[in-house]
Amino acid sequence: MAEASRTSEARRDAVFGRWVVFSPARSRRPTDLKSHAPTNPSPGDGDAPRPSCPFCLGREPECAPEIFRVPAPDTPGEAPSPWRIRVIENLFPALRRDAEPPAPEEEPADVGECAVRGFGFHDVVIETPRHDVRLWDLDAEGVRDVLLAYARRVQQLSEHRAVKYVQVFKNHGASAGASMAHSHSQMLGTPFVPPSVTSRLNCMKEVFERTGKCSLCEIQSKDSLVSETPNFLAIVPFGASYPFEMWIIPRQHGSYFHEIDQDKALDLGSLLKSMLQKLCKQLNDPPFNYMVHSAPFGIASSCLPYTHWFLQIVPQLSVIGGFEMGSGCYINPVFPEDAAKILREIDCS
Amino acid sequence: MAEASRTSEARRDAVFGRWVVFSPARSRRPTDLKSHAPTNPSPGDGDAPRPSCPFCLGREPECAPEIFRVPAPDTPGEAPSPWRIRVIENLFPALRRDAEPPAPEEEPADVGECAVRGFGFHDVVIETPRHDVRLWDLDAEGVRDVLLAYARRVQQLSEHRAVKYVQVFKNHGASAGASMAHSHSQMLGTPFVPPSVTSRLNCMKEVFERTGKCSLCEIQSKDSLVSETPNFLAIVPFGASYPFEMWIIPRQHGSYFHEIDQDKALDLGSLLKSMLQKLCKQLNDPPFNYMVHSAPFGIASSCLPYTHWFLQIVPQLSVIGGFEMGSGCYINPVFPEDAAKILREIDCS
Ligand SMILES: Nc1ncnc2c1ncn2[C@@H]1O[C@H](COP(=O)(O)OP(=O)(O)O[C@H]2O[C@H](CO)[C@@H](O)[C@H](O)[C@H]2O)[C@@H](O)[C@H]1O
Ligand SMILES: Nc1ncnc2c1ncn2[C@@H]1O[C@H](COP(=O)(O)OP(=O)(O)O[C@H]2O[C@H](CO)[C@@H](O)[C@H](O)[C@H]2O)[C@@H](O)[C@H]1O
Repeated sequence: MAEASRTSEARRDAVFGRWVVFSPARSRRPTDLKSHAPTNPSPGDGDAPRPSCPFCLGREPECAPEIFRVPAPDTPGEAPSPWRIRVIENLFPALRRDAEPPAPEEEPADVGECAVRGFGFHDVVIETPRHDVRLWDLDAEGVRDVLLAYARRVQQLSEHRAVKYVQVFKNHGASAGASMAHSHSQMLGTPFVPPSVTSRLNCMKEVFERTGKCSLCEIQSKDSLVSETPNFLAIVPFGASYPFEMWIIPRQHGSYFHEIDQDKALDLGSLLKSMLQKLCKQLNDPPFNYMVHSAPFGIASSCLPYTHWFLQIVPQLSVIGGFEMGSGCYINPVFPEDAAKILREIDCS
Repeated sequence: MAEASRTSEARRDAVFGRWVVFSPARSRRPTDLKSHAPTNPSPGDGDAPRPSCPFCLGREPECAPEIFRVPAPDTPGEAPSPWRIRVIENLFPALRRDAEPPAPEEEPADVGECAVRGFGFHDVVIETPRHDVRLWDLDAEGVRDVLLAYARRVQQLSEHRAVKYVQVFKNHGASAGASMAHSHSQMLGTPFVPPSVTSRLNCMKEVFERTGKCSLCEIQSKDSLVSETPNFLAIVPFGASYPFEMWIIPRQHGSYFHEIDQDKALDLGSLLKSMLQKLCKQLNDPPFNYMVHSAPFGIASSCLPYTHWFLQIVPQLSVIGGFEMGSGCYINPVFPEDAAKILREIDCS
């Protein structure tokens, strides 16, 4: 298992069908260029309450319209807060809810060049009223409520005929793309099925046709476990594209994240919290993204046996280069088994 | 055409089959996080000759073994240089030429999880002996010779049974992944066909089956022209994933980059030089990558009608976030037509 003694290996995973090159020796290469490693905001940056942050309690009028809020529970001895979580419209939406949705007959063919009006939904989930609180500083119930807010909003969007998929994601830290420091996540409801969703479903379908099994149900026995709860596994996947990438997978087969119930959401909330704490502790509060991978709305029932939702967490530890951009194949200097061992052993209690 | 008045639009291209969201309004969003825009090495960084750079003239012994060199032409009045271009082994290879290549019977199935030993070739092309010269500072003949060095090395690697694809790429600037400032490019010969190559070929195949046409032959009439030469077009593609992304496409249909001849390489060299000059001038020497997209070796002759090589240039102007990582769909704040107009009008003479 000693990192340095390992030689390279290439692996293909059974979910995205992507090749990854594992190469521990790569991490020893020199650099004569500055700012190679992405820098997270300097310590304290993003922690200090910002008088100008529109996501903070009391600045609600500076935000785009609210969609719903989760009221704060009464905590004895603390000043009551009018809300705990807010789901709001993104003030600078990539896709616009006020654009005309494509009529059924305008829907693009399966193949070839096409263009559709920029209809869609782009929402922000403000995870806490406080500027200095990070998602994993909340208690498990607090994280549960964030997850349930995602689920509720996805459910609402699923009822819109022209929305084909909702991508739920979180950016933390400037090098992970975040422009706002206040703890938040986003979701984008798109009038098309995004490319990675199509290729993931195609890959899982092929595996299912060949083996009769769902790739993600199968993972339980093979991949490197970091932690587990009654309903979920946290693993470093066999074909992790990024160092210390983790997947949280429901044990029970299910296509749609937004069908999660209260109990499972609490279980997931506590696991997500502890995985983010581990990352923060091991990698010194790295920039990271997480993404919920679910199924497109309204898929045929024949697709249900091989669609299995999960959550992917990716710390941003290096800049990708032309090889990855061109080939779609990533070079990962850390073997999943080694990353999992390190993550398993971090004590966050 | 006024940027601000445009609303969003989603487009799918006919080469990668990827959806992209164009959203000019997104570029107006605020940020309270520092280092959001990737920074290129500060001016002068990378320009000053470095006494410690192993890619510089005279430091050849500090490099991994040379594969071949291109001798320098005699320039009257200048001290002769023993070489103009060197193709060398990467000292920290992601894949190793000394690993055992997979035997034909060990080759992975088309579907599902698999692992192969880390066999492959990882080479570096040192484009100039001088630390302070960038690729586009060379004359067209100099750029031609770099392209011909790529082609010659790809040709050599194509003769190895176990090499399925060679990804040629260049990283310029720290935010584009470069760890070395001295002008260079790289190539990786892989024992598998990388994921983006497979999906590109699948997409072009589907288009061909539906229309009888090669997606890249068709592009000539539709996409936004930046510049052209007798043999090549430089365009901003209809479905550009990145702001100011450009593609250089041979007019004549052909599957393999490495079959380029001297004349076409000179033509391409002069066009590539002027496109890089335009980027450097318009975007203030941005970090960028370029990638050659060619065909896997030994494809069936039935694939030849829809495989068409091209070169993609991508300036790195923003950090991607969880939406792009999760969905594979990019948000591009600059419409291709607008980018092409700006790039067309820059005068680099
Ligand atoms: N007053 C207000 N009311 C409501 N909303 C407000 C607001 N002020 C700002 N916002 C929105 O809040 C969001 C904050 O999002 P993030 O910090 O996660 O990253 P952002 O979307 O900027 O871009 C990152 O994520 C996207 C998607 O992955 C990438 O395209 C991009 O390159 C990357 O930097 C922004 O989208 C912004 O438009
Ligand atoms: N003395 C020597 N002799 C021979 N070779 C030497 C050498 N000293 C250094 N090298 C090699 O020179 C190469 C320089 O390459 P680049 O600057 O283009 O980016 P790098 O490969 O480091 O990583 C970027 O590109 C890769 C591939 O896209 C990404 O995986 C990565 O994240 C990104 O930072 C390195 O690969 C290094 O191993």
